[in-house]
Amino acid sequence: VDTTSTTFLVLDLAGTFAFALNGAWTAMRVARLDIVGVVTLGMLTALGGGFVRDTILDALPPATFTDWRYLAVAAAGALVAFASGHIADRLAMPILVLDAAGLSLFAVSGALKGVDFRVGVAQAVILGVITAVGGGTLRDVLIRQIPAVLTSGLYAIPALVGALIVVGGTQLGVAALPAAIVGAVVCFAIRILGGHFGVNAPGPIGRDRGSVDP
Amino acid sequence: VDTTSTTFLVLDLAGTFAFALNGAWTAMRVARLDIVGVVTLGMLTALGGGFVRDTILDALPPATFTDWRYLAVAAAGALVAFASGHIADRLAMPILVLDAAGLSLFAVSGALKGVDFRVGVAQAVILGVITAVGGGTLRDVLIRQIPAVLTSGLYAIPALVGALIVVGGTQLGVAALPAAIVGAVVCFAIRILGGHFGVNAPGPIGRDRGSVDP
Amino acid sequence: VDTTSTTFLVLDLAGTFAFALNGAWTAMRVARLDIVGVVTLGMLTALGGGFVRDTILDALPPATFTDWRYLAVAAAGALVAFASGHIADRLAMPILVLDAAGLSLFAVSGALKGVDFRVGVAQAVILGVITAVGGGTLRDVLIRQIPAVLTSGLYAIPALVGALIVVGGTQLGVAALPAAIVGAVVCFAIRILGGHFGVNAPGPIGRDRGSVDP
Repeated sequence: VDTTSTTFLVLDLAGTFAFALNGAWTAMRVARLDIVGVVTLGMLTALGGGFVRDTILDALPPATFTDWRYLAVAAAGALVAFASGHIADRLAMPILVLDAAGLSLFAVSGALKGVDFRVGVAQAVILGVITAVGGGTLRDVLIRQIPAVLTSGLYAIPALVGALIVVGGTQLGVAALPAAIVGAVVCFAIRILGGHFGVNAPGPIGRDRGSVDP
Repeated sequence: VDTTSTTFLVLDLAGTFAFALNGAWTAMRVARLDIVGVVTLGMLTALGGGFVRDTILDALPPATFTDWRYLAVAAAGALVAFASGHIADRLAMPILVLDAAGLSLFAVSGALKGVDFRVGVAQAVILGVITAVGGGTLRDVLIRQIPAVLTSGLYAIPALVGALIVVGGTQLGVAALPAAIVGAVVCFAIRILGGHFGVNAPGPIGRDRGSVDP
Repeated sequence: VDTTSTTFLVLDLAGTFAFALNGAWTAMRVARLDIVGVVTLGMLTALGGGFVRDTILDALPPATFTDWRYLAVAAAGALVAFASGHIADRLAMPILVLDAAGLSLFAVSGALKGVDFRVGVAQAVILGVITAVGGGTLRDVLIRQIPAVLTSGLYAIPALVGALIVVGGTQLGVAALPAAIVGAVVCFAIRILGGHFGVNAPGPIGRDRGSVDP
C-alpha cells in the first residue's frame, strides 16, 4: 500500500491546514491569547491527533514532526487565523466547513495508517477517530474547555463512520483511494447535516437534556 | 517471569473493567455527556494509565491497544455505566470498592511490568503508581476537575505502598504472584480504611486545611 | 558530540532542580494540595518537558526516567518547596530567577538533544521550546490554569531565541558548549528583562489588551 502514503499526503496536508486555521480561530474566541498562544494552539490542533496516533503505533518520531511540510502548513494556517481573527465572528460557515473537512480527512488518513501498520480492524477504526478528534481535544484541554468530542456526538460519530467505511472497504478488497473518498464524503456529510438538523447522540437515562446545567 | 503475564491478565482485565465502570460513573456525575463522551471517558480511565506506562517503557504499541480484550472489556464497563447512570448516586459503596480494586490491581500489575522490563527499583514503583492513577488523572483533566491524586493522599499513597511491596518482594526473591497478592490486598485495605477514617496526607505548613478555600 | 551529554548533565540537573522548586511553589499558590500533590506537580514540571521531547525523538524510555539522578533531584526540589511553601509569597524574586534559569537551561539542552539526533533545524528549535515550556504546561493543565506559555510571550519567545542561537551556532560550526552558554544567557536575559519592562508579544488585531476580560 505504498502509493497510499503518496496519494494522501495532499489530503493530509489539506486537513492540517484546515485544522490549524479552525483551531486557532476557536482558541481566539475562547481565550485571550498573544501570537505565540494562537500559533501554538493552531499547530497543536493540526498536529496533535497525528502525534497521538503515531505514538500509539510506535511510528516515532511522528510524521507530522519529521516532515517539515506539516510544520510549515500548520504554522501558515495558524498565522492566517491570527491575522484574520478580528473577522472570525463573521466566519461561522467557513469555520464549520473547514472543521468538517479536517475531521473527514484525518479520520480517513488515520484509519488508513492503522491498516498500513496491520493493527486489528477495531484498532484501525479507533486510530482514525483519535487522529480526527485528538488535536482539537488537546487544544480544548489547554484553553480549559470541556472537549467538544465529549459533549457533541457530531465529532466522534461521523469520524467513526468514516473510519469504519475505510477499514471495512479495504478489508473487503476495495482499493485505498476509493474507500477513502467514500469514507471522507460520508463523514463530511454527517458532520454538516447533523449540525444543520441539530441531531445528537443519546444522553444518559433520566437526564433531561433540554434543561440548562445546574 | 513469563508466567507472570499469563497469570495477571485476568487481574489486569478485572482492573480494567472496574476502572471503566467507575470512571464512566464519575464522569457522568460531573459533566453533562452523551453516550460518546461517557464511553470515551470510561475507556480512557481504564486504558490511560497503561498507555502512559507503556510509552515510558517503550513498549509501544501499548498492550491495552493491541490486545482487543482490553478494548472490549473497557467498552463493556463504560456501556454498563452508561445504562445504569441514573442509579449511580445510590451506588456510592460499590463505586468506592471498584475504585479501590482497580487502583490495587493496576498498581501491582504496573510495578510488575516495570520489574519485567528491568528498570530500576524506584522506577518500577513509580510505574506502578502511574499505571494506577494515570487513567483517572487523564479523565479528570478532560472534565476539568483537579485530579483526585493531587488533593487526596488516598490515591497515590496506597498505590505507592502496594507497588513498593511488589517491587521489594521480587527483589528479595519472592515469586511474583504472592508478592502481587500481598501488595494488592494492602493497597486495597489502605484505600478503603483511609477513606473510612478520613485519613489524609499532610498539607503545607501554615495552611489550615479545615477552612474553606478563599 | 559525545562530550556534549557529559558536559550538560550538570546544567540539565540544575534546570531540573530549579523547575521542581519553582513548579511546586507555583502549584501551592494556586491549588490546595497535600504533600503528594506538591511533589507530583514539582516532579512533573521538572521532568515533563524532557518526557515529551524524548517521546517525539523516539528516545524512550525517557532519560529523565531511566537516570535516577533526575528523579532524585526533582523530588528533592519539590520537597524543599513543600517545606518552604509558607514563605513562598515572599520569594517572588528567587522564583522568577529560578524560572528563568530552568527555562534557559532546558531550551538549550533540548535543542542540543535535537541536534544530536540529527532532526532538522526547525525541529531542533521546536524541541528546545517544547523541553523548556512542556513541564510547566502539563502542571498548569493539572491545576486548571491556562498555561502561561499561551498568554505570555515571555516564555516561548526567550526559549525560541535561545534554541535558535544553539541550533544556528552548531550549524555554523561553533562547538556545543559556547553556543549553549550564549543561548542560555540570552534566553535568561530576555526572560528577566522582558518581565521587568513588561514587554509582551502582540495580540490579535482589534483586541484591546489593556482592558479586563469580559
